[in-house]
Amino acid sequence: MPVYTAPVRDMQFLIHDVLQTQNYSNLPGFADATPDVIDAFLEESAKFHQNVVHPLNVVGDKEGCIRNDDGSVKTPTGFKDAYNQFCENGFGNISMDPEYGGQGLPLYLAIAVTEMTSSCNQAFGMYPGLSAGAWRAIHAAGSDEQKQTYLPKMTSGEWTGTMNLTEPQCGTDLGLIRSKAEPQSDGTYKISGQKIWISAGEHDMADNIIHLVLARIEGAPEGIKGISLFIVPKFILDADGNPGERNAVSCGGLEEKMGIHGNATCVMNYDGATGYLIGEEHKGMRAMFIMMNEARLGVGLQGYAASEIAYQNALAFAKDRLQSRSVTGVKAPDKPADPIIVHPDVRRMLLDTKAFNEGARAFVYWAALQEELSHKAPDEKDRQKADDYMALLTPVIKAYLTHKGYQGTNDALQVFGGSGFCEEWGMSQFVRDCRISLIYEGTNGIQALDLVGRKLMAEGGRYWQTYFAEIDQYIEDNKNVEGLELYLEGLKKVKGQTMEATQWMGANAMANFDNAGAASHDYLQLFGLTALSYVWCMMAKTALEKKSDSDPFYENKLITGKYFVERILPEADTHLTKLKTGGDTMMSLPAEAF
Amino acid sequence: MPVYTAPVRDMQFLIHDVLQTQNYSNLPGFADATPDVIDAFLEESAKFHQNVVHPLNVVGDKEGCIRNDDGSVKTPTGFKDAYNQFCENGFGNISMDPEYGGQGLPLYLAIAVTEMTSSCNQAFGMYPGLSAGAWRAIHAAGSDEQKQTYLPKMTSGEWTGTMNLTEPQCGTDLGLIRSKAEPQSDGTYKISGQKIWISAGEHDMADNIIHLVLARIEGAPEGIKGISLFIVPKFILDADGNPGERNAVSCGGLEEKMGIHGNATCVMNYDGATGYLIGEEHKGMRAMFIMMNEARLGVGLQGYAASEIAYQNALAFAKDRLQSRSVTGVKAPDKPADPIIVHPDVRRMLLDTKAFNEGARAFVYWAALQEELSHKAPDEKDRQKADDYMALLTPVIKAYLTHKGYQGTNDALQVFGGSGFCEEWGMSQFVRDCRISLIYEGTNGIQALDLVGRKLMAEGGRYWQTYFAEIDQYIEDNKNVEGLELYLEGLKKVKGQTMEATQWMGANAMANFDNAGAASHDYLQLFGLTALSYVWCMMAKTALEKKSDSDPFYENKLITGKYFVERILPEADTHLTKLKTGGDTMMSLPAEAF
Repeated sequence: MPVYTAPVRDMQFLIHDVLQTQNYSNLPGFADATPDVIDAFLEESAKFHQNVVHPLNVVGDKEGCIRNDDGSVKTPTGFKDAYNQFCENGFGNISMDPEYGGQGLPLYLAIAVTEMTSSCNQAFGMYPGLSAGAWRAIHAAGSDEQKQTYLPKMTSGEWTGTMNLTEPQCGTDLGLIRSKAEPQSDGTYKISGQKIWISAGEHDMADNIIHLVLARIEGAPEGIKGISLFIVPKFILDADGNPGERNAVSCGGLEEKMGIHGNATCVMNYDGATGYLIGEEHKGMRAMFIMMNEARLGVGLQGYAASEIAYQNALAFAKDRLQSRSVTGVKAPDKPADPIIVHPDVRRMLLDTKAFNEGARAFVYWAALQEELSHKAPDEKDRQKADDYMALLTPVIKAYLTHKGYQGTNDALQVFGGSGFCEEWGMSQFVRDCRISLIYEGTNGIQALDLVGRKLMAEGGRYWQTYFAEIDQYIEDNKNVEGLELYLEGLKKVKGQTMEATQWMGANAMANFDNAGAASHDYLQLFGLTALSYVWCMMAKTALEKKSDSDPFYENKLITGKYFVERILPEADTHLTKLKTGGDTMMSLPAEAF
Repeated sequence: MPVYTAPVRDMQFLIHDVLQTQNYSNLPGFADATPDVIDAFLEESAKFHQNVVHPLNVVGDKEGCIRNDDGSVKTPTGFKDAYNQFCENGFGNISMDPEYGGQGLPLYLAIAVTEMTSSCNQAFGMYPGLSAGAWRAIHAAGSDEQKQTYLPKMTSGEWTGTMNLTEPQCGTDLGLIRSKAEPQSDGTYKISGQKIWISAGEHDMADNIIHLVLARIEGAPEGIKGISLFIVPKFILDADGNPGERNAVSCGGLEEKMGIHGNATCVMNYDGATGYLIGEEHKGMRAMFIMMNEARLGVGLQGYAASEIAYQNALAFAKDRLQSRSVTGVKAPDKPADPIIVHPDVRRMLLDTKAFNEGARAFVYWAALQEELSHKAPDEKDRQKADDYMALLTPVIKAYLTHKGYQGTNDALQVFGGSGFCEEWGMSQFVRDCRISLIYEGTNGIQALDLVGRKLMAEGGRYWQTYFAEIDQYIEDNKNVEGLELYLEGLKKVKGQTMEATQWMGANAMANFDNAGAASHDYLQLFGLTALSYVWCMMAKTALEKKSDSDPFYENKLITGKYFVERILPEADTHLTKLKTGGDTMMSLPAEAF
């Protein structure tokens, strides 16, 4: 069975030392998150995930979910029990609003726990994950009554939630939604239509499932401006607020998928189900986007979380597997061959993955802090800046971290050679599970369009200008830090390349919008490299400060960061060159000539 | 169900127009391969593969192979019948020696047919594919009697063959083989041991299976120099040469794999089985390498063959799926949205894949011609040159084409969005099947080491010097061809970068062998880019010559080639930069610090 050890040390390094979150005790909830509390939480979570959630990963893959003839869905053996323990331990509501029973602790702690869940059982993690998304949408856009009605049980985990967007004829283009909502005299709506790919749409782990459904009220404007959002509970609540009558919503089938077999991906049929409007009519997309932005942070996390566990297993294999001798002389003379970690090309695959994973983790935890600042910073200007960063970087987190995370997961499989292809070693599952993260919550191509089409232009370019200015300032402030030169030079170069790309976009995308689309993927990759380079500088600086002879952690961190600069940052060169070729060639080929 | 149309036009373009194979009619067998014969063959093969082999791909994935309690293996429904038709149609012995019943036609024709088989059913194609490998080893190293005994039935396909190398403790490092061969008084050997991952090791499609087995004769020298090769038939032949007594070899189990479920990947147990020595004692690796080199050509082909069918399906989807409007204005006003092929980022994924596939096909067909020249060219110097090229480029074909083919297959899946992740659309199978090609017949890392460790140094660097000189000459000869400038400039640049990398290797790899290993992956990628750039120049030149207003094929080829220069060649920049950072950083991290 695959191994997993939660990277608690690295999490502590980021939370305590790099981000120095103790400096934010003025933010609501942060004072409670003392280093001791955080460490205890991480240790507890590590134990639980390693011992309870991780062993169910293979079970989920093999058993999958089963839909019974009555439309009910059985989750894999052990999932329900593990989910109950997960909720009892408070792992599902760490940063949720205390007003509804949440713990109100900082998001980066919740994110650290979510990373563990996602690494050791992505399919399992999606049940509370989707639920948290639905929670946020109701929290952000629901009425007080709706919040009081639904949030406490969703916070405790007794009820879960789902997001119902996709229909057979529309995924990316939600303006094409056909599901209907008919207003009733009592203020409710009758919802009809079919939704597909609804993760955790039906299961046996909770007493109720709160579906959030996008539908079109009769007579609504065409397209995206005529979409409304509804709460459609599986069981309509009785007068006491308990699950009562079964609503007219049912699971019509489960998808057979490449991976995440342990999660029920449902076709959901709405046959005049009772729904309750969230917010205003025709303004459903707004609340949906609140949910989606945090979900995209979670999906980006899934990318490196998969890469993390895949890496851990590849590393264990590389230390254990004896094959051939080192080209620079025998390293394990008492053995019939050397462990394959002596071979440079094996190290290349391991370090490509390690340097990415650690950078990605830092980037996501940094983003989780920004997300908190965007809501809770006392100063309006600080809130605005953090909000700008999140708007700008959410598509980068989602797409860059899943794109590279999938590469890392594949590289880790490659370290296993033929064993990587055999299901018994578990590497295949990591790759198969990880593959979806490049697609759901908006394909990576859509993220890239969001970045170049919306985020770059927004507020006259303020988002990226502020972010780049912060990086410039950081480079200036730290230019005399001994030992940091290499990392800063890397950052300066890649930031310059991304700046050059941004200027190219300004000059060419307006002239022909197809140039923006043609450049979007490479542009997002450049942005991802810049973001990781920035956090690698932060990590290197901290490591330089804390370096000691007695603890090799910091020296090793510096080596990994150096590897990032030498071996990952040069990818920027190619992205910049490709991007600047524009869209003319690709648009000149007639569709029938492909 | 996925679609597949054999790319006959592109195959004809390469065979007739680009490689101008009609000019080689002085080679044995080539005179019979007139353009008419080739075209008829390709058309027949296309029909057969589209109608018979392709529909079984999904069947093979879903059913897999089943091992019965008696150790026999049932292949998926329809495989046996399709295999019989495949053999009857003569698709398995196109380029085999007529002395043993083969058709003696040129290898590029066999390769074109193999591409079709591999595209539409990789798991099925491995049965005749492995058989052809075993055939070649016997043909190259067996005694006349062995050839007369085994080759005719293997040529007809009545018997199949396998290659037994891997054991639990050794894959890459065959020096660790433990399987034993005990000499018997009658000149035969008793073979004992366990082999794993034996493709097509046991099945129900043929009357006999001729296993080629690497084993160690008692008292043999340690390591790779003590390995011998044996023929171990499943049924020992009776006095008439027909399958008689069952030999002591059996399938102990089937691997559960990520993909190629239709192929039986067997644990093979040898319990004192009767074996016949091929060639000399302890010289087994030599014959095995003959087999492996051609097998590696076949695996490289699998890489782009998977990418080809994945591309075809992504293209069909991109033309059909309506989602969002083009950013430069509505393209399909009569429809609720535009087909997604209007979006530049979708075109990017399609063209990345298309430009690679067409370049890869040209490279492999060119190599198949070189392989023929290496055996059949009248002039010794021409034979030597072609042989040098095959030695040099075999690892590039294997590793570069599978590495990029897997990317292409994944990009094609990505075009499908969520549907790509659902098994019913078939894209998942293409990715899962393709994954193994980066691993078997020597992992891609081993190919890279073969290139930098053996092939570069061989004969004082003659292989690469001759190849680069040919490219220089080509550039010089064609410098005045109007319209070819862009393609030649691309070639000149990437060849220069690969040359620079070669010089770096010369200066640094000798000083520290770890530098060679650290650079090997990026070096091989550079080589692959150069090789594809070269064949893209050839294709562009031909397209310029044949361009006409009435047939857009050539103009479209030029656009795709331009895309290759603009959007794929820039990858060389990053590979060169990475490579030149050497191995110091990656080797400086202690194993326990990973």
